[in-house]
Amino acid sequence: MSRRRSERMIVTRVAGAGAAATSSRAPDDLIVEEPMSIQLDGVLVATTMRTPGNDYELAVGFCLTEGMLAGTAVTGVRYCADGSAAASEFNIVTVETGGRAPAPTPRLGNVSSSCGWCGSEQLDDLVERLAPLPDSGRFDLDLLRAMPETVRSQQGLFATTGAVHAAAAFDHDGAVVVLREDVGRHNAVDKVIGALHLDSRAQSPARGLGLFVSGRASIEMVQKAWAAGFSALVAVSAPTALAVLAARRANLLLAGFVRGDVMNVYAPERL
Amino acid sequence: MSRRRSERMIVTRVAGAGAAATSSRAPDDLIVEEPMSIQLDGVLVATTMRTPGNDYELAVGFCLTEGMLAGTAVTGVRYCADGSAAASEFNIVTVETGGRAPAPTPRLGNVSSSCGWCGSEQLDDLVERLAPLPDSGRFDLDLLRAMPETVRSQQGLFATTGAVHAAAAFDHDGAVVVLREDVGRHNAVDKVIGALHLDSRAQSPARGLGLFVSGRASIEMVQKAWAAGFSALVAVSAPTALAVLAARRANLLLAGFVRGDVMNVYAPERL
Repeated sequence: MSRRRSERMIVTRVAGAGAAATSSRAPDDLIVEEPMSIQLDGVLVATTMRTPGNDYELAVGFCLTEGMLAGTAVTGVRYCADGSAAASEFNIVTVETGGRAPAPTPRLGNVSSSCGWCGSEQLDDLVERLAPLPDSGRFDLDLLRAMPETVRSQQGLFATTGAVHAAAAFDHDGAVVVLREDVGRHNAVDKVIGALHLDSRAQSPARGLGLFVSGRASIEMVQKAWAAGFSALVAVSAPTALAVLAARRANLLLAGFVRGDVMNVYAPERL
Repeated sequence: MSRRRSERMIVTRVAGAGAAATSSRAPDDLIVEEPMSIQLDGVLVATTMRTPGNDYELAVGFCLTEGMLAGTAVTGVRYCADGSAAASEFNIVTVETGGRAPAPTPRLGNVSSSCGWCGSEQLDDLVERLAPLPDSGRFDLDLLRAMPETVRSQQGLFATTGAVHAAAAFDHDGAVVVLREDVGRHNAVDKVIGALHLDSRAQSPARGLGLFVSGRASIEMVQKAWAAGFSALVAVSAPTALAVLAARRANLLLAGFVRGDVMNVYAPERL
């Protein structure tokens, strides 16, 4: 399979309704998704459908934000590359810590008690693992509200395909530091964080920065932002209730539902 | 934790820009997400963040569309319910086939060759498992194009929270047969399919129906629609390239990018 990020196909475009409807065949650029497996020190930890590109960042960002590195340093990242010359050899990425990271437990096994766990336990787990974020200066609210437009204007794949998620790290001046696009919204965030980590080698590589996401903010988005050390998270759409509770515990500024001139701030509880 | 599907919180609403900006505190309804684990004959097969409600449908729909039932009948569905009276006992659902379903392999283990697999292998795998869909009469294109509005007008949770995915089964008259809303788009689809299966006990419970999804169409959406026997899939946004290839192999009508009077038909290749 191709390593391209979008693929051109011929589709049928239908316009107008009823008897006045016309249809024509036209080329259309579609976003590519391909499976990618992530290994940590040789152990499979996840398989995700992603848009090819920035694969090392995705693998490193995933391991970091899921708490799998536990403070250890990444010593190497590589494709499976067994020399088979098959395209699929680029669909496994191995993150190496020389065996210093704790033995990974697959996400599937996230069940802590006999009868499952619930959102509040999940929160307690995060609070135990991650310290509250330090205060790092207030972001200007006008700047936060402008982020959807700022990022959209820089999105190359969205312009082509009209359907892809974006995540971006931005600074206190509203400048975009890293921007990534992916068919999966978690992947886009992991790629941004992986890029920051590979660049700085810091365990909280996003200290002092804000994170923008083009969709909604779920608990997993807050977890990833928190783990990377971001001090603000801006979502175009609404957060979930659990995401708000988590952001309040994290000392993470959480803004969302940005609609032109209006925006909600969900955390902190009081501005 | 609550079993409610939305939760009211006090948030800060910011309106206007710069010196003219005002902020006020106001109540806001947020969508609830809670973890739920799915077991098949006592074996954990997945954990998903879902909006509570229709949990049996979600569990059954997931097992069916992931091919885990392999034609066997569901003999029972139940919550973990160990009598601990903890809310979390409603966060594990067990699907039972009396051990007749094949031993489940966790999704994480979806790696078929030494160096991972790629999208084309994933397609071949689906084609091997699922027969092409029978022709079941053409859906009216005007009707397909009207689905986003039809479904939106019936979405209770979206009206409240402004942020939730919908999936709906509809018939050849454009009538909505089952509508489900969830924080996760896969969950919404699994709930619709689980509801159809629990009602009919058929292995292709969606025969003759169309499936509407409020977001994009990924390969997983096509897989689920195909496995359930739908003959059409309508997505508000664009499909991925792999989703289009899969729909063409499945004989599934795939329409998307519905924008007012315009719509794309991606599969079949020629109308």
